[in-house]
Parts: sequence; structure tokens; C-alpha cells
Amino acid sequence: MSNNSAAMQKVPLSVEWKDGELYLLDQTLLPHEQVMEKQESAEQVWQSIKVLKVRGAPAIGIAAAYGLCVAIKGHIDLPLSEFKELVKEKAAYLDSSRPTAVNLGWAMRRMLVLLEKDYEDSSDLYNQLVEEAKLIHEEDKAICRGIGDQGAPLIQDGMGVMTHCNAGALATSILGTATSLMYVAHNQDKKFKVFANETRPLFQGARLTSWELGKAGIDVTLVTDNMAAHMMATGQIDMVVVGTDRVVANGDVANKIGTLGVAILAKHYGIPFYVACPSSTIDMDTKHGSDIPIEERDGAEITTIMGQKVAEDGTATRSPAFDVTPNELVSGIITESEIIRAPYEEGLREFFKGK
Amino acid sequence: MSNNSAAMQKVPLSVEWKDGELYLLDQTLLPHEQVMEKQESAEQVWQSIKVLKVRGAPAIGIAAAYGLCVAIKGHIDLPLSEFKELVKEKAAYLDSSRPTAVNLGWAMRRMLVLLEKDYEDSSDLYNQLVEEAKLIHEEDKAICRGIGDQGAPLIQDGMGVMTHCNAGALATSILGTATSLMYVAHNQDKKFKVFANETRPLFQGARLTSWELGKAGIDVTLVTDNMAAHMMATGQIDMVVVGTDRVVANGDVANKIGTLGVAILAKHYGIPFYVACPSSTIDMDTKHGSDIPIEERDGAEITTIMGQKVAEDGTATRSPAFDVTPNELVSGIITESEIIRAPYEEGLREFFKGK
Repeated sequence: MSNNSAAMQKVPLSVEWKDGELYLLDQTLLPHEQVMEKQESAEQVWQSIKVLKVRGAPAIGIAAAYGLCVAIKGHIDLPLSEFKELVKEKAAYLDSSRPTAVNLGWAMRRMLVLLEKDYEDSSDLYNQLVEEAKLIHEEDKAICRGIGDQGAPLIQDGMGVMTHCNAGALATSILGTATSLMYVAHNQDKKFKVFANETRPLFQGARLTSWELGKAGIDVTLVTDNMAAHMMATGQIDMVVVGTDRVVANGDVANKIGTLGVAILAKHYGIPFYVACPSSTIDMDTKHGSDIPIEERDGAEITTIMGQKVAEDGTATRSPAFDVTPNELVSGIITESEIIRAPYEEGLREFFKGK
Repeated sequence: MSNNSAAMQKVPLSVEWKDGELYLLDQTLLPHEQVMEKQESAEQVWQSIKVLKVRGAPAIGIAAAYGLCVAIKGHIDLPLSEFKELVKEKAAYLDSSRPTAVNLGWAMRRMLVLLEKDYEDSSDLYNQLVEEAKLIHEEDKAICRGIGDQGAPLIQDGMGVMTHCNAGALATSILGTATSLMYVAHNQDKKFKVFANETRPLFQGARLTSWELGKAGIDVTLVTDNMAAHMMATGQIDMVVVGTDRVVANGDVANKIGTLGVAILAKHYGIPFYVACPSSTIDMDTKHGSDIPIEERDGAEITTIMGQKVAEDGTATRSPAFDVTPNELVSGIITESEIIRAPYEEGLREFFKGK
């Protein structure tokens, strides 16, 4: 981390564990206010995940692992067997906050594995759970750094790099996934420009990506999603890099709505289109992108912006939250240990064979 | 007009001349309020054009022609020669309200041609100017209807038709340009769905297009601009039709930012992409799309939405208001008298040879 600390020290952490207490950055207040909110109960953590105060699959997993510790901390006087039951109960409760976030269930299952061992007392188990949460946290940092180290060589001096949504430090422990390349390249003193698509309907590019990159001193320009083609046509974009919610076995990529459009435009203009993610985001049990269910969100997110209506009541809408980019539009999948390239079905199989 | 009256009677007119008075629909209040504002002075008309209460090149031209009559009406007691000077002065003043709108200057020049003739008195000239404004208005109605009649056969039962921005009735006298096809096809009882892109940054698709089509009983669905690719990928779009601010001699098309992206996506999915416009929008004096200057607008339109900030102060932005779609992405240019197809350089030359 030391080689990125200069760039990163101004980007707030999304999740922090300090003196035995959990703090979450309230991302719903960004970019207007920067508030680290102390989490004091299971209910508060559940709510923080539910209303997207903490967001991004890796950050949610970390927050839930620590959140489980917060939830049980006041009960270490219980006999060990009762305490173990309570841990299970609280883990199930936290897991229910956002059922679609893969890392949430994964983190809870990983914490519960500890219950199978013996402990001196409840306090001993509690301490071990805290250590496990810290380990999850540290592992994510190493993964994000690995992605940045793998991808940074793709960014050259003078380049324009486009990204969509926020696959940023705010969505992970540090550095992010798609943005990790940028932070590492910036720390290597490369001079490049980032173009952040605002990402309708929820403006993650405007509220989060342009904000966190700006904090780190990276040259970032905010554009509306529909300006991407013009920026490419006028020669300002040399590379696209985005995060992903799920890569499947054939290399198809699900990510925030709008990603598919950017990938098609990149292909039209001969611009490389990369996807950055931890290997844990690659789902080898799902064969094809068309097998990924696409969440349809409330149309009010389109017709109403921060309480202001931009369309009449009763206007019919569609609001898919994600789209699927077919593998043939993907130049490479940047993981923490290597960049996987086409043909993806074989490449991904090989990648996991070595694990 | 009679064959469209059923569909259209619920869509308010953008410009109306009634009992010698000019009324403009205040489009800045749409879709929340529907107010026809009586225009009582040159200054008021100037302001209405300036702040986009009336917008869309054809509507602006008509409003300015009538607006000139409003500006001079109170001075018909002046001697004819003095009255003529006043007409010139007011025309120059109105022309200064929005220098980029082609039809504004065109309408003022056309009105001023009348000054070259003789009149009994100032009142006689005033009456002739009113008649000329009415003629401009009626001609635009015929042109819009012509575009609809030419283009409606392209729309078939069961189709999904995507449009971008508002090339609607609100931007013209009636029916619009891109929307005229839809109104005419709807009146022919064709069953089709329209997908209106919201059109960031100013939401013309959300505020105006989905609103006016909905009023007319057309099945319209609002989507964010970045959903276009997903809608095409999932087989919901069979045709795209947009308006244009300028077509040049080689068939390149300038239109609202985002149009180029939609055109590239349409090509990727093999979906026809049409442009609808009056022949007066075709500028044969400009050879190539790259010769069209692209207006850069204030970044505050991106970072602030109806007074609400979505990005931090000081965020760098780009905000091109238009983009240029190269002719090879255009399936046809729908005018009031025919659909012009590739090769455009020859096709457009032939088209104007016959005029």
C-alpha cells in the first residue's frame, strides 16, 4: 500500500475498524458531506447496507463481517453455546439486508465457519471473529492492489481512459477495481485523463467516481453517459475500463446499465475495453450472460431526481439496473493475478485450474 | 390535419395566434404546468425565446414572426416610413434572442421582404405582416404533415421505435418532425411502442417527448440514455428516428448530444436509423459534418439538476450540446416530400435540383 498512499490518503475509507468499533462512510451523502458513521447495532448495520450507505460488493462483505462483530459484542457474557446461536441468528439477519450482493452471503458463511471450532469462552470466539473480519478486510486490500498492479501497465502517458459507474475505492477496501489501475498508474507519475460517465439513474459516476478520483489528484472529467460516443469520435478516449457484478464462464460480463453501450462504442472506434474484478466475481457455475437475471428497479429513480420530478406522474418507464456485455466486446479481464484474454471459456477454465 | 386531430387534440400547441394576440406555451414549466402565456411586447417575446419557453427551430421561427407583429402593433399610428424603420429595428432585436437558431433569422428576413412593397398606410402593412406570419405558420404545418406522411409507412404493427431528444409537436407548429411519423401511424391505428431516451443533460425526452406522446395516447416508455443498448440487445427496438439541427451536403447529421451513440448502437444491431427534417434544415453550403461547429454548454447543466447538485463544486466537465452522426450510419433522411437515401451527396444534390 505504501506506494499508493500519497494518491490515496485524501480518498476516505468506505469501511474502517478502529479501537474495536465499526465506522462506515455514509455514501448517500456524497459528494456533499463526508460523514463516518459509527455502527452501534445489528439493526443499524443492516440499514446501512440496505439504503446503500455502504455499497459495492467487496465493501458490503467487509462491512457485514465487522457488522456481525458489532451485533454480538454486547453478549459475550452469554454461555458459549448460546453465544454461537446468537452469532448464527445475527449473521442470517445481516445477510437479509441485500440478497443480491454476492460478497455479503460469502462473508457471513466465512465467519460462521469459525463456529465449528472450540473456544475457551464467548469472548475468545468474539476475538477470533474480529480477527477473521480483519483478515477479509486485509485480503480485499491485497486483491485491489493486485488488480491495480496487473492493469496499470495498460495506462500510458497521454491516454484518455473512460470508466462507467463506480468501481472505485468507495466500493472496496481501498483503490477499487477499475480505478485501482488509475491510482497505481497515477502513483507511477503517468499523466493521463479519466472521463467518468455520470451513470444514470443513480449518478455513481458524478457523485462517487469523479469525486474520489478528484480527491486523489487524478485529472478527471465528468460527462453525461450520452457523450461517450462524441468523446470517442473526437479521439479523446484510448481505453475503457469498468468493474463488474458478475463474469460468467464464457466471459460475458454483467455490469451497471450503460456498460454494454460503452463496449459497443469502443468496438466501433477500435478502443480497447477492459473489465477489472477480483477472481471471486467470476462465476464459473453460470454458463452464459443470458442466464444472469437482470434486476428491474423502481421507475421513480428515473422520473424523480433528489425529490425533483423530471417526468410526469404515471409516465411508463423501464429501469434495468444492469446489462450484459458479450465476451466478444471484452479486450481482457483484469484480475488480481493476471489479465485473462479471449478465448474466455478456455482462458477462465485454465485460470481456475491453477487455483 | 383532420386525420390527425383525434390524436393531436390533447397535445397543446407551442405557438398560437388568436384574435390578434400571440400565445406561447411556456415549455420550461412542462410537464408540471401547462401555461399559454400571452405575449404583450417585443421584450417579452425576446425573453421567451432566450430562456427556451419556446424552443425548436421551426417553433422559434413562427413565434418570432408573430412576435414581430406584437412588437409593432401599438405603433400603427406612425407614418408609414417611420413604421417601416420600426419594423426593421424590432426584427433585428428579436433576431438577437438566439443567434444559433437558423429559422429565427430566416423568418425575420422573410418578414422584412414585405417592406419593399407599397402600402396604403401603416395599418395596411401591419395586416400584411400578420398574414405573412400566418403563412409561415401554415407552411410549417404542411411540412410537418408531409414528413409524417412520408415516414409513417416505415412504422409497422408491433414495432418498437426509439427516439432521442424532442423533435416533437412542441418544437414545431404541429406533429413535429421525428414524432410526426408516430402521430400519423398512430392515427392509422398501427400498434407500436415508442421508447423515448430521457436526453441528458436537459431531459427533453423525459419532460417533453414522453409527455406529448403520452397526451396523444401513444404507447411511450421513458428510458435513460444508457439503456438504449440493452433495449436493442433484448430485441425491443426495430427502428430509430430522430430530428436534426443540421444536415450537410454529404449527409452527415448534427443533432442533440447522444444521437451519434444511438446511431452506432443501431448499426451494431442492424436496426434502421432515420433522420426526419424539413428540407430547410439541409445546409448544402456546408460540405462535411466536421465543418459544423459544436456548441459547448455550461457544465453546471451536468452537475446541477433543478437546483440540486449531483457532483461536487469544481468538478471538471465537458458539455457538447450536439454530436455529428456520419452519413454511413443513416438509413434515410425523411423530408416533407421524399425519403432521401445513400449515396447522400448525389441524393441531396438531386433533391434540390428538382426544387
